[in-house]
Amino acid sequence: MECVLDQGCPIHIGENAVQLADEIPLRQSCRNCVILCESNAANLILPPFLDRCPNLRKQPVYYLDSSESRKQMESLLPLWDAWVRDGMDRQTLVINIGGGVLCDMGGFAASVFKRGIPFIHVPTTLLAMADASVGGKNGVNLHETKNILGTFRRPEAVLVDPVFLQTLPRQELLSGMAEIIKMQFIANAEASIESIEEAFRSKERLSELLHFAIARKAEITGTDFEEANLRKTLNFGHTFGHAFEALALKRGEPIPHGIAVAHGMVCELYLSWLMTGLDRELFEQGLDWLQKHYGIFAFSPEDIPDLMGYMKNDKKNIEGKIYPILLSAFGKCRFDQAVPESLLEKTLAAYPFF
Amino acid sequence: MECVLDQGCPIHIGENAVQLADEIPLRQSCRNCVILCESNAANLILPPFLDRCPNLRKQPVYYLDSSESRKQMESLLPLWDAWVRDGMDRQTLVINIGGGVLCDMGGFAASVFKRGIPFIHVPTTLLAMADASVGGKNGVNLHETKNILGTFRRPEAVLVDPVFLQTLPRQELLSGMAEIIKMQFIANAEASIESIEEAFRSKERLSELLHFAIARKAEITGTDFEEANLRKTLNFGHTFGHAFEALALKRGEPIPHGIAVAHGMVCELYLSWLMTGLDRELFEQGLDWLQKHYGIFAFSPEDIPDLMGYMKNDKKNIEGKIYPILLSAFGKCRFDQAVPESLLEKTLAAYPFF
Repeated sequence: MECVLDQGCPIHIGENAVQLADEIPLRQSCRNCVILCESNAANLILPPFLDRCPNLRKQPVYYLDSSESRKQMESLLPLWDAWVRDGMDRQTLVINIGGGVLCDMGGFAASVFKRGIPFIHVPTTLLAMADASVGGKNGVNLHETKNILGTFRRPEAVLVDPVFLQTLPRQELLSGMAEIIKMQFIANAEASIESIEEAFRSKERLSELLHFAIARKAEITGTDFEEANLRKTLNFGHTFGHAFEALALKRGEPIPHGIAVAHGMVCELYLSWLMTGLDRELFEQGLDWLQKHYGIFAFSPEDIPDLMGYMKNDKKNIEGKIYPILLSAFGKCRFDQAVPESLLEKTLAAYPFF
Repeated sequence: MECVLDQGCPIHIGENAVQLADEIPLRQSCRNCVILCESNAANLILPPFLDRCPNLRKQPVYYLDSSESRKQMESLLPLWDAWVRDGMDRQTLVINIGGGVLCDMGGFAASVFKRGIPFIHVPTTLLAMADASVGGKNGVNLHETKNILGTFRRPEAVLVDPVFLQTLPRQELLSGMAEIIKMQFIANAEASIESIEEAFRSKERLSELLHFAIARKAEITGTDFEEANLRKTLNFGHTFGHAFEALALKRGEPIPHGIAVAHGMVCELYLSWLMTGLDRELFEQGLDWLQKHYGIFAFSPEDIPDLMGYMKNDKKNIEGKIYPILLSAFGKCRFDQAVPESLLEKTLAAYPFF
């Protein structure tokens, strides 16, 4: 087991990491603890967790529907009511167990209850392991505006255990892989398509890349908490990715976040080739390989105005200009290059680039 | 004008303090600002504020019904919707103008919007000046559970200006006076009934005592943020006071918080005389004087079980025991003396002690 420090918050990574939760009732600092579990996947994630944590079997379990559409302030009111009813106090630790939405909601619920009680995260999806449980952001949506209400507050610890990956649906695994691949593109000058591909065949290699993604995200968010510079590079693949995600949602056929980001990375590699001298071979290699694993996002020319609209309303735009993250090589990003709308449109028209 | 520092947050006190708000649009640190005003008293507080702050006259004004019954999470959702709709960003400063409930709600709304935007308080009641705007607590109720959801976050500044006291209803003035008087009892070894009485006749003396109350509260909450020890003394008058407040509310005839605390102080002076050797003369003097200004809280022997019930369910009790704050002299408190229920009941039976 390894440990990464995220501004004082230990992120334990590896087989048996969840067993650290079992020691909590034996420790002095927290008088007791409760479990907050994703209701949608409770039958998959709670049994392996409690198997490994016998001391927690008698602790109260609360459930939260953590689908994206329920990630609203209103959904937390019944949970807080239950916490008041059960007399939870400031010494109670909340163990959040679930995917990214559960960790975001549970972290927020704890951070404002009695003006802040301690919590830990046990992320159960690859995406939550790589992304949501690092950096101290939590919160809920307000109607359709994502993550607009929340706090910055890091958990007491994060326990990243591959046990949950065994039962994770393939789409969810792929979704998490995309964020891990993204981190190789933006932050590993030594990476190659072959070295990343290995993670699709070997658990050990996946674990290495997961560790890299967590450590690098902790480093980047720690040095750039306010998202002024370096943190922006984490948005590689997200300018187009968010637009694809929004269009899919509008069609009533939502796709997982990471899948959309993978399609977005393909587009932003193309843009990088056009604008920042990314090697044509690397672009083509990346394109073939990402499309092999993730397929193609299907849209028609009539959808392009919608996709452009999503990109033009991105909250990361500055004075109306769009700044996709561009690569010039593995590990080398530009985040200060405004891209003209005509070029974004041309990219969409050229997609899927063969 | 004077300034007290509350852990880095400047509290400006005196004539013309509000005019400091007028300089905000001229400063670099905040790109712009908006006003959040108590809707119930807007016609009384907004005109004198904008008279003194001509630069703010064109800033957007949001209104919030800040009666105690509306101090709920649900009440903030339309406000946040409006902030999203109007494109408020992290550089926008919120100016909270109103009583304690408005400051509590406005501080909370700002502290979770986009994970925290800056705010200042302009308290317009004596109670909010003396009490609510010091110490960095904000929040809302959850149904009937008071202030259970919130954050600790201090404003950028607090502007305490007596201009608002000119139109404050007499009951509200008396309510604020009670917290100021409380601070003399618990923290000023030099105080006397005569020296406090003066504040009822002289604006200058009231201003001195207000300054003392703010400075002392900032000091106490700064050294004891987690309410482990010294901060408990701020609860003098509140064990009985909260019970009176709750009974009044249940009867459908709510009384202002400070008025209830004044009645509570009378009871706790009596208990102090019984248990900690408070001088009988001082108790009688305090009793006569408080009852002269605040009258008597009317209840019948049949109400005593209800009042006892409220005291037994106080969240400040420890292991079921009740710890009222007891005085042995001006400026000398005990907060670690559990008082048997029988003695609390006897105190209620003896009330109003003549």
